[in-house]
Amino acid sequence: MDHDFPTVAINATQIVSYEITVTSRIAEAASVLADGLASGNEGMEKALVFVDTGLPQQHVEKFRSLLVKGGVGCNFVEVPGDEENKVLKEVIAVVETMNRYGIKRRSSPCIVLGGGVSLDIVGLAASLYRRGVPFIRVPTTLLAMVDVGVAAKTAANHLGFRNRIGTFHPASNTIVCSEFLTTLPRRQMVNGVGEIFKLACIKDSVLFSLLEEAGERFVESRGQDVAGAQQIIDRALRGMAQELEPNLWEANLKRVVDYGHTFGPAVEMRYIADLLHGEAVALDCLLSAVISNNRGRLSDGDLAQVFMVAARLGLPLFHKGFDDVELLLSGLQDMTIHRDGNQNLPLMSGIGNAYFVNDLEPREVTQASIRMKEIAEVTAGGNLTRKHNDNEIIVEKVARRD
Amino acid sequence: MDHDFPTVAINATQIVSYEITVTSRIAEAASVLADGLASGNEGMEKALVFVDTGLPQQHVEKFRSLLVKGGVGCNFVEVPGDEENKVLKEVIAVVETMNRYGIKRRSSPCIVLGGGVSLDIVGLAASLYRRGVPFIRVPTTLLAMVDVGVAAKTAANHLGFRNRIGTFHPASNTIVCSEFLTTLPRRQMVNGVGEIFKLACIKDSVLFSLLEEAGERFVESRGQDVAGAQQIIDRALRGMAQELEPNLWEANLKRVVDYGHTFGPAVEMRYIADLLHGEAVALDCLLSAVISNNRGRLSDGDLAQVFMVAARLGLPLFHKGFDDVELLLSGLQDMTIHRDGNQNLPLMSGIGNAYFVNDLEPREVTQASIRMKEIAEVTAGGNLTRKHNDNEIIVEKVARRD
Repeated sequence: MDHDFPTVAINATQIVSYEITVTSRIAEAASVLADGLASGNEGMEKALVFVDTGLPQQHVEKFRSLLVKGGVGCNFVEVPGDEENKVLKEVIAVVETMNRYGIKRRSSPCIVLGGGVSLDIVGLAASLYRRGVPFIRVPTTLLAMVDVGVAAKTAANHLGFRNRIGTFHPASNTIVCSEFLTTLPRRQMVNGVGEIFKLACIKDSVLFSLLEEAGERFVESRGQDVAGAQQIIDRALRGMAQELEPNLWEANLKRVVDYGHTFGPAVEMRYIADLLHGEAVALDCLLSAVISNNRGRLSDGDLAQVFMVAARLGLPLFHKGFDDVELLLSGLQDMTIHRDGNQNLPLMSGIGNAYFVNDLEPREVTQASIRMKEIAEVTAGGNLTRKHNDNEIIVEKVARRD
Repeated sequence: MDHDFPTVAINATQIVSYEITVTSRIAEAASVLADGLASGNEGMEKALVFVDTGLPQQHVEKFRSLLVKGGVGCNFVEVPGDEENKVLKEVIAVVETMNRYGIKRRSSPCIVLGGGVSLDIVGLAASLYRRGVPFIRVPTTLLAMVDVGVAAKTAANHLGFRNRIGTFHPASNTIVCSEFLTTLPRRQMVNGVGEIFKLACIKDSVLFSLLEEAGERFVESRGQDVAGAQQIIDRALRGMAQELEPNLWEANLKRVVDYGHTFGPAVEMRYIADLLHGEAVALDCLLSAVISNNRGRLSDGDLAQVFMVAARLGLPLFHKGFDDVELLLSGLQDMTIHRDGNQNLPLMSGIGNAYFVNDLEPREVTQASIRMKEIAEVTAGGNLTRKHNDNEIIVEKVARRD
C-alpha cells in the first residue's frame, strides 16, 4: 500500500519438500513406511493409521501385519472413501481422533491408507489440527496414486460445490504401491485412467500413445502388466509433479492440469452418486476437445482420436449432465471466480499441447454439447449405454437427433 | 526416507510478505484501506467487510461512510467477537457468506474489522475458502492490534481446547488505528496490556519500564496520550513482529512469545465466560515468574516488580483457576504435546530475559500456585477482589492460609 504511515513489514520464506516413493509390492511399501517412522520417532508410540472403509480387508490385514513385523505398533481408524462423505463433518471427526490419541505436533505423523477422498479428508484434518501436523499418504486407488497423492492439496466439498473448502498441506511422504490395484473394481481403475487421459491430452503425447497402445491391457490387468503399466503410472505421476512443483500454491492460475476441470465439477456434484471424479474429468476433456475443434484449433483427426482412445479405455463418452448447458455454464462461471475472474480455460491444440482461452461464449458450449453427443454416439457405434462392473450405468443411451 | 525405490521429489519455496500500517485516526485507516482496494481492484465490485458485533456502531458508521467517500462500496456482515463463539460453526458461516457474495479468489480481499476473535474467525475462513483467499485486518481492540493482528495465525477453539483448529494464513495487510481504542471498555484495554506485559517480561526491559511509568496513563487514556501510548503500541507490535518473522510457521518450537501461554490456555477455556485471554496470559506470566524465582533464576526484587507492575496496570494477580493444580498440569501436558513432546517452557531470568526449561516437575507447579496467591495478596494489599468496569469480578478474594 502506498502511503506515508509507519509500517512494519514481515517477510518470510517457507521451503516445502516432499517425496513420492514408487513401489510395486505391499511388503515394499510397508517396509519403506516402517523405516521412515522408526527413523523419525525414537519413542515409537503407536502410529495412528486412517484406513479407507472401501479398502479390502485383505490389504488392511496384510499392511497391518507387515507394519507390526517392521516394529511399528498401529492404531487403525476408519475414514470414509466416497465423494458424498468428503465433508467437513468427517474432517472434524478425524481431527477429534487425532486429539483423542494425543499425537504430537511434529514427530507423530499419521498415516492414511486409501483412495483420493480419504486422502483429502485426512489431509485437511492434518492441516487444521494444531495448525498443521505431518501425515503420510499411501494411495490405494489409481486416481489417488497419480493425482491426489502427488498434489499439495487437501479438500472437502461444501454447499454442493466440489473442494469448496481446503488447504495446501502436502503429505511429507507418499508411498505408491501398485499391488493395491489388484483388487480395484474395473470402474475404479477406469476412474484413475480419466486423470491420466487428461494429462496425456493436454501435456504428453508419449503418454497418449502409451494409453492408446497399452491402456486397455493396463486397465484389464489392474496395472500388473509390469512393463507398460509401471511406465504409465510413472509417466503420469512425474508429469503431474512437473506441473505442480513450480506452481505449488497456484500463484499462476493458468494451469494445464485444470484441463477437464472446468465444466466437470458442477456435473460431478449434481450427479454425485452417479459419476466418479475421473469420469467427469474425461467427459469434460471430450467436451473441451470439441470446443477446440469447433474453433478450428484441434484437427478432426485429433478429435476423433481423443474420442477413440477414451472409448477404448472404457471412459464414458457422454452423460446426461453434459446435455444440461445451464449446468455446464454454472461450472464455467464458478471456475472463472476460482481463476480470479478469468476463464483461463485450457484447451488442446493437438495431442499433448495446450493453449488458454478467455473468450468462450455460451453458444459455443451449447454447440459443443450437441456435437459431443453426436461424436460419442458414432464412436460408440450407435449405442452409448454401457454397464460397469459394479452395475452402475453411467453412460446413457443417446436419443438420435435429426 | 532411505531406500532404493524410485522417488519423485517436489521442492517448492513460498515467499510470504505482509505489512502492518500504523495510523492514529479512523479517517487515516479508511483512506489507507480504500487506496489499497482501489489499486488492486480495477472492476471495483463491492468489498465484503466483516464487522465484530462488539464494535460500537459509531465506529462502524464512520468507517463505512469514509470508505464510501473513498470510492469503495461495501457489504457489511456481522461476525461474533467473543471467545465462546470462536468455533468452527462461525467459521463456516463466514465461508458461506464469501461463497454467497461470489468473491474472487485473488482480487476481492475481504476486510475484517474487530477484535482478536473476529480476526481469527475470518482469517480461518479466508484460509479455507477455495484453499485460501486474501483478507485485510483492521484490529479494533488493543489485544488484536499488538498480538493477533501481527501474527500469521488463524484459529478456532474446539473440544474445549483453545485454538485446537487453525492455519497459518496472514492477512495481506493489517491496518492498526488507535482511535478505535477510545471506546474500549477499561477491561478490554487491560486485556490487551496483558500481551504487552508478557512481551515486556520475557523480551523487552525498555517496554517493561515504559509500562511501569506510563502504563496506567496508557490504560486510562485508552491509548490516546499520544507520546507514551504510541510508543507502547509501536514497541509491542515491532517486538512481536521481530519474534515471528524468522519463525513464522513455528519450525522452532522454543518461542519466547509462548511466555504466559503454557498453563493459562487450560484455565482460560475452563473459565471461558469469566477470563479474557490477556488476563489468563498475565496470570500465567505471574505463575511462571514464581516458578523461576523458586528455581533461583529470577531475583526476589524482579519478582516483586513483576507483580507490582501487573497490579498497577490493573491486571489480575490471581484467579481460582490458578489454585487448581490439576488444571494447570493439564495445560502443561497439552502444551508439551503442542511443543512436540518437550515442555519448552519459557521463563524469565530477569526483566526482559528468557530461558527455556524442560524439567519442570508437578510439585513445582503446586508450590508456585501457593506462593503466587500469597504474593498476589501482599501486592494487592490483602484484598484481591477487584471489580471491573463492566462489573465482572475476575480477581477473587483469597482465603488466608495459616
